[in-house]
Amino acid sequence: MTAYPSRQDFTIGEKASLSRQISIEDIQHMAAITGDFNPVHLDEEYAALTRFKGRIAHGVFSSGLISAVLGMHLPGPGSVYLRQSLQFLYPLRPGDVLTAEVEVTAWRSEKRIVTLRTRSMNQHGNDIAEGEAVLLVA
Amino acid sequence: MTAYPSRQDFTIGEKASLSRQISIEDIQHMAAITGDFNPVHLDEEYAALTRFKGRIAHGVFSSGLISAVLGMHLPGPGSVYLRQSLQFLYPLRPGDVLTAEVEVTAWRSEKRIVTLRTRSMNQHGNDIAEGEAVLLVA
Amino acid sequence: MTAYPSRQDFTIGEKASLSRQISIEDIQHMAAITGDFNPVHLDEEYAALTRFKGRIAHGVFSSGLISAVLGMHLPGPGSVYLRQSLQFLYPLRPGDVLTAEVEVTAWRSEKRIVTLRTRSMNQHGNDIAEGEAVLLVA
Amino acid sequence: MTAYPSRQDFTIGEKASLSRQISIEDIQHMAAITGDFNPVHLDEEYAALTRFKGRIAHGVFSSGLISAVLGMHLPGPGSVYLRQSLQFLYPLRPGDVLTAEVEVTAWRSEKRIVTLRTRSMNQHGNDIAEGEAVLLVA
Repeated sequence: MTAYPSRQDFTIGEKASLSRQISIEDIQHMAAITGDFNPVHLDEEYAALTRFKGRIAHGVFSSGLISAVLGMHLPGPGSVYLRQSLQFLYPLRPGDVLTAEVEVTAWRSEKRIVTLRTRSMNQHGNDIAEGEAVLLVA
Repeated sequence: MTAYPSRQDFTIGEKASLSRQISIEDIQHMAAITGDFNPVHLDEEYAALTRFKGRIAHGVFSSGLISAVLGMHLPGPGSVYLRQSLQFLYPLRPGDVLTAEVEVTAWRSEKRIVTLRTRSMNQHGNDIAEGEAVLLVA
Repeated sequence: MTAYPSRQDFTIGEKASLSRQISIEDIQHMAAITGDFNPVHLDEEYAALTRFKGRIAHGVFSSGLISAVLGMHLPGPGSVYLRQSLQFLYPLRPGDVLTAEVEVTAWRSEKRIVTLRTRSMNQHGNDIAEGEAVLLVA
Repeated sequence: MTAYPSRQDFTIGEKASLSRQISIEDIQHMAAITGDFNPVHLDEEYAALTRFKGRIAHGVFSSGLISAVLGMHLPGPGSVYLRQSLQFLYPLRPGDVLTAEVEVTAWRSEKRIVTLRTRSMNQHGNDIAEGEAVLLVA
């Protein structure tokens, strides 16, 4: 039915991840696409005065990279995103290398529903966000 | 401490919302920024064969527009995103007008923590995603 | 030339909008910023005696929210505000949820000038103000 | 009927004006009240790259100060704002002293409708915006 092969089965503990560096330009593009021009993301002078002591990237960089891993790698194309929860733990900053990692924690083969723990980290190993994703596999 | 005035108090039931049309171009930009090139978002021919019967926008358009409302309007600048959950209910398609609405459901003034119900809808009133956001107000 | 991507093209009928609740506190802040202490905005006792039968919000809440939609969403960052006309139709009151909606009515691609109809409404669907905005797109 | 005396008559050519300096803090407050966080108003680094070569104040500072003159001075309290048009001519910058001047151009005493030319200028005499206001006098 679909042009990409779908995974037939999953193993608890299976992992996939993706990393990419987030630039100031990426943040400006994200503002333009979502309309989120919150100065904590864009205005260094202002952001320096906040508890973050400098600009931070939009939270959706974390969820966006997690979606990328889920949709392209594990469980991969053809899966349908049902739910995502995220807890924000640490600021992601311009220049940081963001890693999104997903790990299978449950697989209900009869309903074809897979649950994954999702983690976002920076290049120093700090946890940026953690959460859970639930997907239906075609 | 910050240069923007922060809201001192919130009322249960307070709302704010934002609407914007999502174009194919926006979806291509989102793919480029997040690295999410899942063909269900980008390849019409492939997407037509899936259960969605056509391209759908990335889920982070919903969370991104919700972040925009939260960060710029309610609770507004100076707030810190603690948690977000999202349940995806209906596909968002290129050309759709996405509305993100947030509504205060709880306000713990002593901890300065505000909880909001978040809803994303298309122009036909279909619920795209619903969830909950928790923020700390400076 | 600018750090935000500019829209290359517009379609007649494209829309974007923003809603937010206007509080007494917002009105007091607006008075302080603009110097407009007209008692019809600030003094309930006085305002009750006028044709409005109660306090009304400053007209610039309407134009301000319209500017927000224009500058951040449609046509978005990098556009230059050339003209705005507004006709005030109905009073905006403290506590009202104001919606500002803009819709593309003309696009002269060779001059890169976009014209939009602007509408402000309250939560009951009453038209607060309507007008036209003309912008140059970078 | 109202607690403030209303003007009974107007003369063509009558003028009133108000001046105030617009600070960075005013601009940040305006962003917070209207939700207009367009980076051309708030982010010096970005704004320096635009045609404005630096941050500019929101256009509603011009319309807000005009409203202040109209509502508090000429025609004064008790008048009802029917229409305003504005043409933006020159950028208003943080630190500028903005002057809003209104001048009666027509007075239809039987309908109690007064028309005024509105001008906004900076401290160097540059025209920031010009337009026309129409009000009903109680």
